Amino acid sequence: MDKKRRALYPGTFDPVTNGHLDILKRASPLFSEIIVAVGKNPSKSTLFSLEERIDLLKKSVAHDKFQCPIQILPFSGLIVEFARDNKITTLIRGLRAVSDFDYELQMALMNRKQVSDIETVFLMPDEKYIYLSSSLVKTIGRFKGDLKNFLPEPVVEAFHKKF
Amino acid sequence: MDKKRRALYPGTFDPVTNGHLDILKRASPLFSEIIVAVGKNPSKSTLFSLEERIDLLKKSVAHDKFQCPIQILPFSGLIVEFARDNKITTLIRGLRAVSDFDYELQMALMNRKQVSDIETVFLMPDEKYIYLSSSLVKTIGRFKGDLKNFLPEPVVEAFHKKF
Amino acid sequence: MDKKRRALYPGTFDPVTNGHLDILKRASPLFSEIIVAVGKNPSKSTLFSLEERIDLLKKSVAHDKFQCPIQILPFSGLIVEFARDNKITTLIRGLRAVSDFDYELQMALMNRKQVSDIETVFLMPDEKYIYLSSSLVKTIGRFKGDLKNFLPEPVVEAFHKKF
Amino acid sequence: MDKKRRALYPGTFDPVTNGHLDILKRASPLFSEIIVAVGKNPSKSTLFSLEERIDLLKKSVAHDKFQCPIQILPFSGLIVEFARDNKITTLIRGLRAVSDFDYELQMALMNRKQVSDIETVFLMPDEKYIYLSSSLVKTIGRFKGDLKNFLPEPVVEAFHKKF
Amino acid sequence: MDKKRRALYPGTFDPVTNGHLDILKRASPLFSEIIVAVGKNPSKSTLFSLEERIDLLKKSVAHDKFQCPIQILPFSGLIVEFARDNKITTLIRGLRAVSDFDYELQMALMNRKQVSDIETVFLMPDEKYIYLSSSLVKTIGRFKGDLKNFLPEPVVEAFHKKF
Amino acid sequence: MDKKRRALYPGTFDPVTNGHLDILKRASPLFSEIIVAVGKNPSKSTLFSLEERIDLLKKSVAHDKFQCPIQILPFSGLIVEFARDNKITTLIRGLRAVSDFDYELQMALMNRKQVSDIETVFLMPDEKYIYLSSSLVKTIGRFKGDLKNFLPEPVVEAFHKKF
Repeated sequence: MDKKRRALYPGTFDPVTNGHLDILKRASPLFSEIIVAVGKNPSKSTLFSLEERIDLLKKSVAHDKFQCPIQILPFSGLIVEFARDNKITTLIRGLRAVSDFDYELQMALMNRKQVSDIETVFLMPDEKYIYLSSSLVKTIGRFKGDLKNFLPEPVVEAFHKKF
Repeated sequence: MDKKRRALYPGTFDPVTNGHLDILKRASPLFSEIIVAVGKNPSKSTLFSLEERIDLLKKSVAHDKFQCPIQILPFSGLIVEFARDNKITTLIRGLRAVSDFDYELQMALMNRKQVSDIETVFLMPDEKYIYLSSSLVKTIGRFKGDLKNFLPEPVVEAFHKKF
Repeated sequence: MDKKRRALYPGTFDPVTNGHLDILKRASPLFSEIIVAVGKNPSKSTLFSLEERIDLLKKSVAHDKFQCPIQILPFSGLIVEFARDNKITTLIRGLRAVSDFDYELQMALMNRKQVSDIETVFLMPDEKYIYLSSSLVKTIGRFKGDLKNFLPEPVVEAFHKKF
Repeated sequence: MDKKRRALYPGTFDPVTNGHLDILKRASPLFSEIIVAVGKNPSKSTLFSLEERIDLLKKSVAHDKFQCPIQILPFSGLIVEFARDNKITTLIRGLRAVSDFDYELQMALMNRKQVSDIETVFLMPDEKYIYLSSSLVKTIGRFKGDLKNFLPEPVVEAFHKKF
Repeated sequence: MDKKRRALYPGTFDPVTNGHLDILKRASPLFSEIIVAVGKNPSKSTLFSLEERIDLLKKSVAHDKFQCPIQILPFSGLIVEFARDNKITTLIRGLRAVSDFDYELQMALMNRKQVSDIETVFLMPDEKYIYLSSSLVKTIGRFKGDLKNFLPEPVVEAFHKKF
Repeated sequence: MDKKRRALYPGTFDPVTNGHLDILKRASPLFSEIIVAVGKNPSKSTLFSLEERIDLLKKSVAHDKFQCPIQILPFSGLIVEFARDNKITTLIRGLRAVSDFDYELQMALMNRKQVSDIETVFLMPDEKYIYLSSSLVKTIGRFKGDLKNFLPEPVVEAFHKKF
C-alpha cells in the first residue's frame, strides 16, 4: 500500500565515499527503508571486489546515523529488474557536476522506458562533495595521498592495507 | 513525526504547463500531501495575475488524478520561510536543460544555507517536456500559436480569452 | 517538388555580425535560396529599428559572395507560420556556446511541435565567431570600442553615426 | 555542379539505433543521396563486426521510407579523406545531450581544418531519442532488457541471437 | 619592466560578496597590486549606488588580510581601455557554475580581440561560494533572509539599513 | 619570499600541441619560471614514451620565445606533492570546452583539499585551439592526416617517423 516509501540507491561504490553517505543521509528521512544496491558489473574492473565494496559500505553505514534502516545488497543485471523483483519503484541518485547530470538523465530516461513506473529522485550532496568522485579518490589513494576528507574511516584503512 | 512526507512545490507558474503537472504526478506517490506554492514576486511582472495563476492551477489539477492531495497556496517572501512556517522540509523541483540545472543547484544550496534541514528533491519530467518553458509558451500564446501540446486545457482557454 | 531546398534563416539581427554572415556563407551551397527573416519583436526593444536592421543586412550581404540567392524579409508573429506561408520547411541556425545550444534545442523542438514537418539545420560558425554575440557587440559599440573584427563594414559605419 | 547535395553520415553504428534512423529520415529531404559511412575502427573494439553493423544498417534502412536514396559503405582512416574521395563536402551529425555537443563541435572544427570546404550539418533527433546512446543500448541488451523502444527490429533480433 | 604583476579585478559588485573576497585573497599572492574596478554601468540599474558599492568594498577589504595592496576604483566605458590607461594587461575573474563559464570565455575573447595583449586569469573560489551570486543575495536581502554566510559584515549592515 | 612567482604546468603531453604552447606563452609574463611537469602515469598507456614526450616538449619550447624560463621535468605520483617538493604553490591549467571545465574544477578542488595553499590559475587558449585535444590529434596522426595546424614542427616530424 505504501510501496513507494522504500527506495533503491544503486551504484558501483568502488569505494563508497563521504559523498555517497551524504546522499544517503539526506534521503533517509524521505523513505521507510533504503536498499543500497551494489553492482556486480562483470565488464568493468573494480579496485575493490564486490565483497569488499559491500563490507566497506556496511562498516561505513554502521558508523553513522540515518533516519531509516539501510540495507546493503549486491545486484547484477539491470537495476530496473532488481527494483521490480524487490517491489521498489523509486531510485535515488546524487547529482554533481554537469557531465554527471547528462549521464544521470540518460539513465533515468532509459530506466523509465524499460519499466514505466520507475521514478528517479535526485538529491544534491553538500557542496563540499560536489566535485568528489570515486575515480579521483582511487588515483589519490594509489599515490598515498591524504583521503580523510573524502572517505569514511573504514575505507581509508582499506586503502592503507591495499597500498 | 512524519514531517518530511509533506512537500512544497514552489514556482511562479505563469502559467502552469503540462511539464509542471507531469512533475506533480511523479511526485505525488512519494508524499502524503503536496503544497504548490505560487510566488507573488513583486519585482517580476507576470502575464497572469497571482489570482489567475492560482485559479488556473486549481482548475488544471482538478482535471487530473494524483496519488496524494494537492493544495494550491500563494506565497511571498522567501520559500524557506514559507516552508518553515508550514513545517515542511522538502522542496520539489523539476529538472530540465543544462542552464536550468545550474540555477536549480544554486537555489538549492542557497536555501540549504538559510535553513539547514531544507532538502530539495529533483524529478525529471517526461522527455517530451524536457525543453518546455513557461516563457516560450507565452511567446507562442501571444502570436496565437497552437498550445494544446504544452498546456492544460484551462490554460489554453485563458490564452484564448487574453489574446 | 524540391521544396526543402529553400531555407529560412530567422533572427533579430540587432545588428548583423560577421558570425551571421559566416553561417549564411556556409549554408548557401546547401540551398537554392535562403530567406533571412528579420524579426519585428514588439516586446523586445532593439538598438536598430526593423528598417535599419534590414538595410544593414542588405548592404552587408551585397558586400559578399554567396552560392545561392539571399533574400531579406521582415517577419512578425511565429516563425513557423512565416515558414508555412512561404512554403519553407527548413530553418537554419548557428550554434555557438553551450547556453545557446540549450536554447536552440528548445526552440527547435517547440517549432517542430507546432508544425511537424519543420526541420532545423544547425551549422557551426568559424571558431573565431564562436563566442561572438550581438549583445556584446552593442556594449562595445556604445563605448566606442573597436568593432572591425566583429562586424561587416556597413554596420561599423552605422555604429559610428549612432554614437 | 550540385556537389553539396550528396552527404555523408559517418559513425560506428554499433549497433544502429532508432535515433540514427530518425536523423537519416530528417536529413533525407535535404539531399539527393546520403552515404552512411560505417567506421572500421581498429583501435576500438565493437560488439558487432563491421559486416554485421553494415548488414544491420541495410536491413533497418530497408524497413523504412526515406526521401532520398541511402547507401551503406564501410570506411577506414579519416572521414575527411573518405569524403574527398567520394567528392562529398557535407557531413551529417545528430545532436543530443551536452557532452555530445562539445565532442561534435570539436570533431567538426578539426575536420574543417583538415579539409577547408567540409561542412557539418547538425540535426536534432526526436526528443524521445535525445538521451539514447549505442553504449547504453548494449548494456541493456547484454542483460536481456527490453530494447523494442530503442532499436529497429533487425537489431533486436541480432541481440536475441547474440545473448 | 614588471608590468604584468599588477592586475585588474573588474565587476559590478552590487554588492561585494564573500565569493569576491575569496577570489581577491587567492589572487593577492600572485600580484604586486590589484585594482578592483567597480563598473558604473548606466544601462544596468543597481541596488547600491556606485559610491555605496565602492564604500562597501573598501570597508570589506579593510576587514581582511591580503598578500598585496588592494585599490578600489570606479570605471566606466570598456574595461580594456581602463586597463590600457592604467598600463595593466592582466584581468582577474572568478569561475563558478557553467553558465558563468561560457559568459566569461566570451568576455575574455572579446577583450583579447580589442587589445591583443590583455590576458584573463581565472581563479576558482572555495567550493562553498561556487553557487553564490550577487543577484540571489539581493533577493534574500530584500526578504530579510539571513545573509551572514554570504556577505561581509559591512554589507550585511547595509542591507539592514536599506530594508 | 616571492614563492608564488614560480608555477607548475602539469600534464601528460602525449604529445604537446600548439594549444599547450599557447597557454605557456600566455602564462610566461605572469611568472618568474614555469616548470612543465610531464606525468609518468603507469596506469594510462601513452603513444609516446615519457622520454619522447619530454624530448618533444624541449624541442618545441626551444623553437619559441617565452617571457620567463621554461623547465621540463618528469613527475610521478601526485602533482600536489611534486609541487610541495619544489616549493611551488601555483598550478597552471588551460581551459577549453565544457567537459574540460568540470574536470578541471574537480581536479583543482581535490588538489586544494590535499594541500590547502595550492592555487590553480586557469588561462584560455587562443580560440583556434579551443577544441584541440591530444587524443584527436593522435587519431588524425594515426591515419596520416595533416597535423601542421595543430602541432609544433618537432611533433609533426615525430608522427611521420612513427607511422
